[in-house]
Amino acid sequence: MENFRRRVGGFAFGGDYNPEQWDREVWQEDVRLMREAGVNTVSLGVFAWASLEPEPGKYEFGWMDEIMDLLHENGISVNLATPTAAPPVWLTHLHPEVFPIREDGHPFGFGNRMQYDPSSPVYREYAASITTKLAERYSFHPALAMWHISNEYGPTSYGPAAAANFRTWLKRRYGTLDRLNEAWTTRFWGQVYTDWEQVDVPHIPRTWMNPTRRLDFKRFTSDALLECYLAERDIVRSFRDDIPVMTNFMRFFRHADYWKWAPEEDAAALDIYPNPADADSHVSAAFNYDLFRSLKGGQPWMLMEQSSSAVSQWQLNIVKEPGRMRLGSLQAVSRAADSVMFFQWRASRGGQERFHSAMLPHSGPDSRTFREIKDLGREVGRLAPVAGTRSRSDIAIMFDWDGWWGLEEVFGLPRSDFSYTDTVMRHYTPLWERHHAVDVVGHASSLDGYKVLIVPNAYLIDDEAVARIHEFARNGGTVIMSFFSGVVDADNRVRPNGYPGAFRELIGAKIDEYWPARPHEEFAVTFADGRRTTATWWRDDLHLESGKALATYADGLLEGRAAVVENAYGAGRVVYFATLLEQEAFDATVARVVGEAGVRSRFEGVPAHVECTVRGDDAYDYVFLLNHSAEAGASVPVGGKGTDLLTGQEVSGEVALAPLGAAVIQIARA
Amino acid sequence: MENFRRRVGGFAFGGDYNPEQWDREVWQEDVRLMREAGVNTVSLGVFAWASLEPEPGKYEFGWMDEIMDLLHENGISVNLATPTAAPPVWLTHLHPEVFPIREDGHPFGFGNRMQYDPSSPVYREYAASITTKLAERYSFHPALAMWHISNEYGPTSYGPAAAANFRTWLKRRYGTLDRLNEAWTTRFWGQVYTDWEQVDVPHIPRTWMNPTRRLDFKRFTSDALLECYLAERDIVRSFRDDIPVMTNFMRFFRHADYWKWAPEEDAAALDIYPNPADADSHVSAAFNYDLFRSLKGGQPWMLMEQSSSAVSQWQLNIVKEPGRMRLGSLQAVSRAADSVMFFQWRASRGGQERFHSAMLPHSGPDSRTFREIKDLGREVGRLAPVAGTRSRSDIAIMFDWDGWWGLEEVFGLPRSDFSYTDTVMRHYTPLWERHHAVDVVGHASSLDGYKVLIVPNAYLIDDEAVARIHEFARNGGTVIMSFFSGVVDADNRVRPNGYPGAFRELIGAKIDEYWPARPHEEFAVTFADGRRTTATWWRDDLHLESGKALATYADGLLEGRAAVVENAYGAGRVVYFATLLEQEAFDATVARVVGEAGVRSRFEGVPAHVECTVRGDDAYDYVFLLNHSAEAGASVPVGGKGTDLLTGQEVSGEVALAPLGAAVIQIARA
Amino acid sequence: MENFRRRVGGFAFGGDYNPEQWDREVWQEDVRLMREAGVNTVSLGVFAWASLEPEPGKYEFGWMDEIMDLLHENGISVNLATPTAAPPVWLTHLHPEVFPIREDGHPFGFGNRMQYDPSSPVYREYAASITTKLAERYSFHPALAMWHISNEYGPTSYGPAAAANFRTWLKRRYGTLDRLNEAWTTRFWGQVYTDWEQVDVPHIPRTWMNPTRRLDFKRFTSDALLECYLAERDIVRSFRDDIPVMTNFMRFFRHADYWKWAPEEDAAALDIYPNPADADSHVSAAFNYDLFRSLKGGQPWMLMEQSSSAVSQWQLNIVKEPGRMRLGSLQAVSRAADSVMFFQWRASRGGQERFHSAMLPHSGPDSRTFREIKDLGREVGRLAPVAGTRSRSDIAIMFDWDGWWGLEEVFGLPRSDFSYTDTVMRHYTPLWERHHAVDVVGHASSLDGYKVLIVPNAYLIDDEAVARIHEFARNGGTVIMSFFSGVVDADNRVRPNGYPGAFRELIGAKIDEYWPARPHEEFAVTFADGRRTTATWWRDDLHLESGKALATYADGLLEGRAAVVENAYGAGRVVYFATLLEQEAFDATVARVVGEAGVRSRFEGVPAHVECTVRGDDAYDYVFLLNHSAEAGASVPVGGKGTDLLTGQEVSGEVALAPLGAAVIQIARA
Repeated sequence: MENFRRRVGGFAFGGDYNPEQWDREVWQEDVRLMREAGVNTVSLGVFAWASLEPEPGKYEFGWMDEIMDLLHENGISVNLATPTAAPPVWLTHLHPEVFPIREDGHPFGFGNRMQYDPSSPVYREYAASITTKLAERYSFHPALAMWHISNEYGPTSYGPAAAANFRTWLKRRYGTLDRLNEAWTTRFWGQVYTDWEQVDVPHIPRTWMNPTRRLDFKRFTSDALLECYLAERDIVRSFRDDIPVMTNFMRFFRHADYWKWAPEEDAAALDIYPNPADADSHVSAAFNYDLFRSLKGGQPWMLMEQSSSAVSQWQLNIVKEPGRMRLGSLQAVSRAADSVMFFQWRASRGGQERFHSAMLPHSGPDSRTFREIKDLGREVGRLAPVAGTRSRSDIAIMFDWDGWWGLEEVFGLPRSDFSYTDTVMRHYTPLWERHHAVDVVGHASSLDGYKVLIVPNAYLIDDEAVARIHEFARNGGTVIMSFFSGVVDADNRVRPNGYPGAFRELIGAKIDEYWPARPHEEFAVTFADGRRTTATWWRDDLHLESGKALATYADGLLEGRAAVVENAYGAGRVVYFATLLEQEAFDATVARVVGEAGVRSRFEGVPAHVECTVRGDDAYDYVFLLNHSAEAGASVPVGGKGTDLLTGQEVSGEVALAPLGAAVIQIARA
Repeated sequence: MENFRRRVGGFAFGGDYNPEQWDREVWQEDVRLMREAGVNTVSLGVFAWASLEPEPGKYEFGWMDEIMDLLHENGISVNLATPTAAPPVWLTHLHPEVFPIREDGHPFGFGNRMQYDPSSPVYREYAASITTKLAERYSFHPALAMWHISNEYGPTSYGPAAAANFRTWLKRRYGTLDRLNEAWTTRFWGQVYTDWEQVDVPHIPRTWMNPTRRLDFKRFTSDALLECYLAERDIVRSFRDDIPVMTNFMRFFRHADYWKWAPEEDAAALDIYPNPADADSHVSAAFNYDLFRSLKGGQPWMLMEQSSSAVSQWQLNIVKEPGRMRLGSLQAVSRAADSVMFFQWRASRGGQERFHSAMLPHSGPDSRTFREIKDLGREVGRLAPVAGTRSRSDIAIMFDWDGWWGLEEVFGLPRSDFSYTDTVMRHYTPLWERHHAVDVVGHASSLDGYKVLIVPNAYLIDDEAVARIHEFARNGGTVIMSFFSGVVDADNRVRPNGYPGAFRELIGAKIDEYWPARPHEEFAVTFADGRRTTATWWRDDLHLESGKALATYADGLLEGRAAVVENAYGAGRVVYFATLLEQEAFDATVARVVGEAGVRSRFEGVPAHVECTVRGDDAYDYVFLLNHSAEAGASVPVGGKGTDLLTGQEVSGEVALAPLGAAVIQIARA
Repeated sequence: MENFRRRVGGFAFGGDYNPEQWDREVWQEDVRLMREAGVNTVSLGVFAWASLEPEPGKYEFGWMDEIMDLLHENGISVNLATPTAAPPVWLTHLHPEVFPIREDGHPFGFGNRMQYDPSSPVYREYAASITTKLAERYSFHPALAMWHISNEYGPTSYGPAAAANFRTWLKRRYGTLDRLNEAWTTRFWGQVYTDWEQVDVPHIPRTWMNPTRRLDFKRFTSDALLECYLAERDIVRSFRDDIPVMTNFMRFFRHADYWKWAPEEDAAALDIYPNPADADSHVSAAFNYDLFRSLKGGQPWMLMEQSSSAVSQWQLNIVKEPGRMRLGSLQAVSRAADSVMFFQWRASRGGQERFHSAMLPHSGPDSRTFREIKDLGREVGRLAPVAGTRSRSDIAIMFDWDGWWGLEEVFGLPRSDFSYTDTVMRHYTPLWERHHAVDVVGHASSLDGYKVLIVPNAYLIDDEAVARIHEFARNGGTVIMSFFSGVVDADNRVRPNGYPGAFRELIGAKIDEYWPARPHEEFAVTFADGRRTTATWWRDDLHLESGKALATYADGLLEGRAAVVENAYGAGRVVYFATLLEQEAFDATVARVVGEAGVRSRFEGVPAHVECTVRGDDAYDYVFLLNHSAEAGASVPVGGKGTDLLTGQEVSGEVALAPLGAAVIQIARA
């Protein structure tokens, strides 16, 4: 990646480029306008399979040779895609078994991209062929700067190919049917398997699906997609191993366990389309950026796709108002993105996404959007010194696909309206508002070096992660944990010896029953220091053991019982929320506990609407100040003398930000 | 059943026991804790097919021998299940045609219990085999006290096996295709059948299904399930006919006509899970208990499954608060249950219902739930004299599956948002609140001995029932009937000669048109005595003949026309509601009419939140007083001197009840 | 049609008659009551295929001979139906491939009418046979007055027969695959077709369907149904070509392009069931009547089906209150219907529509409904001079199926909750309320002779229509157009050179981006004359070129920018709404612009609840005054001396109308 960074002179700036949609005259205009906009990188050929291999085994590379040369001549690097996300119509026409099968057993029809069963051997064979041909031809082309393996891996299939691979996967996981039967608790409702061939993918059943079977199918599907990725990655690497390889992930994507994927990539890359209709979408964007930085241990990541303005995939597609695209792009950079890229360069005239905005919109170069793109290109150029720098954090928040699947993919919980991303964002937001740097950890991540660990509703968690959390606390860490954590093991089986089986000793309390609240039910809660608040949604029927109450219910059947528990564990401290506290009280409690753990933000006191973050290297800090408010300005003390890279101006003391204003202050390290 | 009652010494107390989920050490603890809790009966093997016959024709009875012996040694009787509700995976793997087919023609997949087409000959053959084997082995085992045939019969299938059996069923019902064509009115829209082979199950059609075809398919499906039951029952009876046989029904279950099923059982048995989130769930529970007592002519019934606390099948599963489980159990007993049983003994660690509460919860014996179970076991023991006693009523309310299907299963009514159970509960509630004992009658039930008959919205009713109602009124009975009754015959064909074809003479009025109300439309109504109220939802455009108006509309296009009609018929009286009166006015009218029919409750004046009922025999009355309020106490005059069986205390005059308190007063008959 | 009019002596009055549902004695009563009611025409045999051809090739015409004779003897004309809307069960039993296939690939089952794939060659062959037999036998029967080809053409199928025909249709449309690939923009997402056999019907895809493929499939389906119609029409015409031929269309029916169909019929015919629960249903009815008159260039049309009171196809079926059926019937006549017909003559006892009201209801002849029918029959008789007369208009409103499909059938617009009929009604209503006569035009219609053209949200519009609109304006016409018009061409491809590609010069403005509004977002708008109002839902980010602002935004990011644009174009004037103005301000603006175009209503000042329309011929005007208010009367100046045909009274000056009152004044032309 260092090579790549050097090649593009800092940040990659550009977008998906689909020249096969356009005539050759348009290509010339494209390249001219790209240069005008400061584009230095494009993702090429993402959906070009049909154009590259119009018939099985018949290839047409001429047009791509031409465009690769043209881009290279104009100093634009290429992130070359294997086009396997868009199997040509001839493939599914010749081999209908390639179509993914729906949960109800029915195949999807043609009419889209990504219409393949990732387990299909036919698909995999054709995908390997086109990948090989492409790598043969372009591995040493001077425009090639990166490999973009397929696109937004996601398809799930419930067909026979998936079933066969699922069985193989299960054999690998469990070894014996006895072990599978135990893990899946098949004695319940008499579902015991006696032959591997009886094990099928989880088609829609008469009532509810076995929860562990469903869970394993999610794990399997993620792995089946990963196999597709690895096969193509290995092909391109076999030709040349000094070109970075990535595939583009998606925001809050439930169907692939990115913790398992990221180590197989040279850079984590994200496609993100924060919804302008959602006033808080920049906060969940921030979380995703932190996640993507964390996926590869702090290594800068790539913002691979975003939109210049509105998208077209929703019922209601709001535009990005003036200044918002710039601010969002800088936000990604502030959280360690080393690229600012878009889908797509030029707006399509037809097809499903004809109203998805582009760098060059339908209204042409004389348009607000293209002017903003050119301005952004200039600014990104000025930020070159920031590329490659990193950031650090004392706080880690747990976010894991197993935990997600446990809460959302299986039915039969005390309440079935948990949203994993909502609860994670609920825990992340008070830290974001207080300008705390936060890393994200999965079940298998190391917790070394953190002072505070946040564990939101970790219903399903494996023994190793449980042990690591205990060790973290034992060694002096502060754990903030929310209700319904540690309930089941990795097989989705309730841990024995009373709730929460995994954490009873850690939180110092035993839970007799989980008491979901009725709709609109609200409970009074009193803190030990007398402050009063309310709670909703959930209560643990909890009995203190070594823990003590930080807050208790002030009414209802649990009056006087603990609502928030504090426990000393080893050298550490555990704070456990046994109910859903009203947001302000929750935030204040989290903030206080974080402070008591010795974690301070250098931007304490700055209003929440100004996002403040720091990247840096041995020589410099780069302080990003991003004002998300369109109404209010702000004045932010940066604690030092420096240079605003966006303007080139020297600053010291306070930096004034206009509404939607931004500054990136380079400050020499002491 | 008398034998069974003697064997358990009064009430059966216990639950479903699934030892195949657990190791042998757990069995020992189970039996010890069962004894501690007063358990005297368990339902065994309900989902054990896969454990008993792990491969086709290969049986493993050893573990069941062991557990039967163990239970017997510990004085626990067994209600032994034929395990046919949970076909093993090998069965559907070998014979996929056993899977039920959905309405859209697609088969369900494996992953559940009850995944069989009840018409499948393959399923029936295998079910007969395992039943035979089980009966051979255990019919004379000393633990055996009852046969539990399969479980919660319910599956519907739209496959070829169902189609073949449906044709047979139709031939039996109609004899000729001409008769079927007439009954189904197939000349409408040109759907005339000319060959039996053309008749199929009602797959999803392009727009709306023929309503009589749909209705007959519901009847057929209930009968197909009943055939499954009968086949297994006859097998176990062929070995020994002095063991009672039952199958467990469900609360308000629309898919099986329990009036046809009940005579084939030795005891009616009910699984019921009143939703704690619904503040009135104990009232609909009371109705179901009355129904189950009535299904076999007043014979005590069995509460076969309930939960100790929360279930897990809903989106939101609220716990039973302290005292509620006890109160609900006593409520069932008060309405002639002779058992208090639960699903299930020990909470499962995994599987679909891992969070369904149990007698022995995940939190173990040291838990609120298990303490309440033990207390309940003790109390149930003290009630032994009540077992086998009966109750009586002057009021009957009509509730029939044909009527239900007519209102809810077919499309094309003046309005299609009728809820049969809602309307039945609307008529039942004023009687429940006033402590009237009520029996439930079906279309085919005798009406002898009642003073008042309530007929809620009997849209579809057969000629025999119509005749019986006329006779009841003619002989002096009081009939309370609501709108949209007597409209169609058993073939769902509009009865000729003006609405309501069946009851025009009975109610003394002809209805020109049915006028459903617009949403939120409200009409003023004035009673003959000047009281004013309102009505909504529906109006008959009704013309009085022999009837007279008890209330008339005070506004709207029907101003001055009858809203409630009274008619003298023979020696009897008919009160007909032609609109949906506001609840309070409706209740008061029903109460007044009941009073005028000479029916009085012995608990007149007791607040509605205290449920008051009486069981009895020749020697004693057993007065049950159950306070459903968690806030208010109450003092109830019991009219005599007696003993509270729960406490052993003598009482006379008034009995004081704490919030959620209960008393069961044994009073000698005069 | 002139012959037909003469034959029935003015207006056709009657309904669908299905004698095959009834015994012969009923037929005699039917004919007697028909005469009593003034019935002169019935639609016969619509669903009689199963009764006419009970087995393949075995015909039973005896009963139809009899009923044809009986009707003829009683002076009742027959609109004889080919019964092909209701394929007999034997057809789909013998040939299951006739069943239509759902979008998910699954076939529908039997249980309904119209269960055929219109592309099925088997269906077409059998349909041709029965049509031929029928035409052979009855073409010269004296009762025959009209041919009713099939019924409410509508089925869509996604099966193999449809796929084959779709390919043929596409070959005809595009000639080459290259042209198809370009039109469908298949290079986007790599969906390029290389062999015609690869092109399939648009089954449900993994995410979104190619929008042009979907659009073409809608066009194809309409054409496939039209082929079915044409085949049957040509058969009956081959026997005798002096009998008018029609098929019955439906209100606001999205699935058949009636502009293409109407030229193939001798009369446009409409089935319409305005929902009495909708207080404005008479306004959308008026629009449909204007459409049906316009479909054949002003020629009187046929009201082929309506209901006497409630229907039964909805969840809630409200009755027509007294007087409403009469008023609705006269409304159709006022807008050039030459018939008043009903579905159906006698209410069915069973089947799907047993509660659909009829001319002769379940309550028999002694009923409100039948009395109203008889009164109506008498009144329709008195209107005979009106039959055949026409009406004229200065205003045309554009309504086109291509435009409809563009807005509603394909996903991916800036917002996807456009309702084409809602927006059309929004533009039509202010004209209706001000008693303006309005014609409806499609994309291909001539605009000659109009002063004002209204173009609601014409997102998709072809080049010829675009040229015609330009010419209309150039020649002095006034165009009123709403946002999101002229965006894509007939292939659903964005027109180049900035929005709105088709109309940039016409409206004198360029649009940079489309800005859908957030939910509940409201904008202040100021008119040039200072009036203030608000706007919601949508804003164009619009830059004036030759146009000038008639109104501007008074707040928000577009403050000061144009919200309504006025442009001089040639000799004409264009007013363009770039946002959704609050209704009153929109109506006032439209009314003012219409007035400024020199269009005046002769009923200016009459309250909106009195609908005022004129039919006429060389000798007379027939002024229809219909008071839709059930509360308020009205006095309407008719500007001349005349005769109320309904009463035979002379009137001059003002006509007084009671609530729900009506008058039809014959006034000699000056």
